[in-house]
Amino acid sequence: MDEVLGKPTMISRVLLRLLFLSFTLNVGLVSRLIYEYDHERGSSSLHTTDAEEKQSYTEFCLGEEASKKTRESTTMSTAAADHEAYVSESSPSLSTEAEEDGKEKVVNLDHGDPTMYEQFWQNMGDKSMVVISGWQSMSYFSDIGNICWFLEPEFAKEVRRLHQLVGNAVTRDHHIVVGTGSTQLFQAALYALSSSGAFEPVNVVSAAPYYSSYPSVTDYLKSGLYKWAGDAYSFKGDEPYIELVTSPNNPDGFMRQAVVNRNGGVVVHDLAYYWPHYTPITYLANHDIMLFTVSKCTGHAGTRIGWALVKDKEIAKKMTKFIELNTIGVSKDSQLRAAKILQVVSDSCEHLNSREDSKNFFRHASRLMAERWDRLRDAVRQSGLFSLPEFMPESCNYFGEANTPHPAFAWSKCEGGIEDCESFLRGYNIITRSGKHFGAEAKYVRISMLDREQTFNLFVKRLSNISL
Amino acid sequence: MDEVLGKPTMISRVLLRLLFLSFTLNVGLVSRLIYEYDHERGSSSLHTTDAEEKQSYTEFCLGEEASKKTRESTTMSTAAADHEAYVSESSPSLSTEAEEDGKEKVVNLDHGDPTMYEQFWQNMGDKSMVVISGWQSMSYFSDIGNICWFLEPEFAKEVRRLHQLVGNAVTRDHHIVVGTGSTQLFQAALYALSSSGAFEPVNVVSAAPYYSSYPSVTDYLKSGLYKWAGDAYSFKGDEPYIELVTSPNNPDGFMRQAVVNRNGGVVVHDLAYYWPHYTPITYLANHDIMLFTVSKCTGHAGTRIGWALVKDKEIAKKMTKFIELNTIGVSKDSQLRAAKILQVVSDSCEHLNSREDSKNFFRHASRLMAERWDRLRDAVRQSGLFSLPEFMPESCNYFGEANTPHPAFAWSKCEGGIEDCESFLRGYNIITRSGKHFGAEAKYVRISMLDREQTFNLFVKRLSNISL
Repeated sequence: MDEVLGKPTMISRVLLRLLFLSFTLNVGLVSRLIYEYDHERGSSSLHTTDAEEKQSYTEFCLGEEASKKTRESTTMSTAAADHEAYVSESSPSLSTEAEEDGKEKVVNLDHGDPTMYEQFWQNMGDKSMVVISGWQSMSYFSDIGNICWFLEPEFAKEVRRLHQLVGNAVTRDHHIVVGTGSTQLFQAALYALSSSGAFEPVNVVSAAPYYSSYPSVTDYLKSGLYKWAGDAYSFKGDEPYIELVTSPNNPDGFMRQAVVNRNGGVVVHDLAYYWPHYTPITYLANHDIMLFTVSKCTGHAGTRIGWALVKDKEIAKKMTKFIELNTIGVSKDSQLRAAKILQVVSDSCEHLNSREDSKNFFRHASRLMAERWDRLRDAVRQSGLFSLPEFMPESCNYFGEANTPHPAFAWSKCEGGIEDCESFLRGYNIITRSGKHFGAEAKYVRISMLDREQTFNLFVKRLSNISL
Repeated sequence: MDEVLGKPTMISRVLLRLLFLSFTLNVGLVSRLIYEYDHERGSSSLHTTDAEEKQSYTEFCLGEEASKKTRESTTMSTAAADHEAYVSESSPSLSTEAEEDGKEKVVNLDHGDPTMYEQFWQNMGDKSMVVISGWQSMSYFSDIGNICWFLEPEFAKEVRRLHQLVGNAVTRDHHIVVGTGSTQLFQAALYALSSSGAFEPVNVVSAAPYYSSYPSVTDYLKSGLYKWAGDAYSFKGDEPYIELVTSPNNPDGFMRQAVVNRNGGVVVHDLAYYWPHYTPITYLANHDIMLFTVSKCTGHAGTRIGWALVKDKEIAKKMTKFIELNTIGVSKDSQLRAAKILQVVSDSCEHLNSREDSKNFFRHASRLMAERWDRLRDAVRQSGLFSLPEFMPESCNYFGEANTPHPAFAWSKCEGGIEDCESFLRGYNIITRSGKHFGAEAKYVRISMLDREQTFNLFVKRLSNISL
């Protein structure tokens, strides 16, 4: 209910207590009903698939040829989702399903759908629930006093609070621009940093291996403002450029810095993965343009909310203008939900280094990631199929201890003379993304570490049985 | 609560009754607290404005020169909003404020912010409330079996149901593509209908007066796929083209048909205003691409949800691809909320022509629009300042009676030799949008009819006192 109540006055604080007493009577029933409804919804979603209509999904992250397998796999992982979200780990039906691996089930780890966090949020229960009345947030406008006029003040407040607590980025003296995910903000930055009067489109570069969506998202509209110019390492000449620095990097998880460092260039920092569960927080980022998203921070990819921290006022204005022209602002409902989610994450920070520190979101997630990476490395040792990147522990300013990075993706290189790693794994019904989409060799694949427990279990089990 | 409960099983139906009994105890307190919170929030939003930071908003719909006035006006209308949403019409404080008009208050009717519907939705109370748990809709995917893989099945179901009830558009044999408002869907359609292999960008045309955003939204990225080519009436030559047909038209409210009708052309129908409260439903639309949005249908502009009904499967796939590249899908939270809102509107249709037919959303809204148009025409008669478009009554298939159109905008022509109507009205602190943005003369202005009651009252009062 907190979302509706907000910051109550003296009177309403009293009313809030009364309401809470009465409301607790309902909680048991509510959660029971949530279970009923979603269990139903989950299972029904398994039966509504229509073979004739399924090609579109493959266009998201995948080549057409992987279409059929992907659809099967996603159907499976939808099933897994519904089980995991509402059935305890010890459920016999689930464990039986996990044991038997007939290899015919497709394991899809191509895209970074962060569904591994569902369990944490289910454990949070009503704390992370939002309630939105029919008459709320109907206007186009959120905060007319702000450069970003569609930014919900509550969301902005929680963004600043979380960065303050984690210590991963400066928000003071930066403007916040909210976006429909960081993909929209990336395009807003390109628009803001390019000049409509320029004779030639500005070059957009990133050091390989770079995020596989950068080329297509830069070029799909054949814009006269900017164009994809490939690997930053091989960018020559003295033309103006925009360099994208993803740190930690997608796909390989290493911390990054700009590599071109020339006059007439500007840098956009994509810090989507610069959170304590993926990498040690080693410095307080204070770049001109920094992009973040709830998808990778809290796992709420379906909410489509990202934010940019922007130092220069005119750039913030131009990014806001892009989002105005592109989608006339950003959903208020999603901003309200994201505000609530970030608030719960910030509140959970109080448990850090306490006896209940598994209630701390970052501690919980960082243990999950560490455990998954250990299991992956074990499986890889058994099969000898891959080589994986090695990371050194570093002191994390958030956890106050030395931590090893546990990236959201495993950037894996096939050994034993396998030239096309993606095809090789597809032979085992394991869908990954080929290195060639990242400006690297086909020997490499990117493997998501963020999928549901059941999918990840099936993956390591199958992997450990592959021997060269 | 319905959103969480969904379609309960036998067991949960019983639980639902128990829950409802217990929950009703809270309703009084909840609504009281909502009032407390929002009243607070409203008034505080009046004090947080910072003069130095306010230019950005003017970029939405307005020229820079109107900046200051617009900001003042919006501050006012924010104040009005908070009053109107939580204080009864008969509140003395409100009526006093409405009576006195010192002319120094800016009345901003430039943009079509559909806040007039807030009152209806407040009256709906909990019926239109959505509750979203922290673990819901976390994945990127909604319906893997669908061409539009990020379309929430519940939203799709309610879209089809509403069109079926209203009879304004065919949904059978059409694919639904959901978008972040119809602005994103408009760009998705341009992307889907243009060819990346074409030597020249395809011409995008619309008959003047056309929607003022079409030129800028078509050209802001200087795309090599499509380019704005102006008024469809003056489009000559045999190059390929895309014609945008807005019907009823924004700004003038008249029903429209394609005007170019040549080979090598395709038509996109923007039917955002083809609903019974704006115009009689005279035919069942069955075009290849039809765009709709909740902003203008139910007033939920802040939710940023629109939908396209698309006949051709390949076009639907390409539109889906655009939205995938642009924002990686559409917020699940907003789709769930929009589904709930559309469900309430459809449910309210049962009251049509009953004794309680003011509970029918379209009847309620259509009476409001008719009453506003009457008051506008009275004020115009008194001042003699404008001429307004005249509409003939037509038989409405939805209401089952003859109705006169009452468009969302008043397309007004200044008389008495006034050449620049927008500037003239700004002299009276009335902000409108000049005809020149719509490919028409500066003698014309577009005036929003959808703003909050208090703003509209102030407008007609002030207008009736202007005499030539």
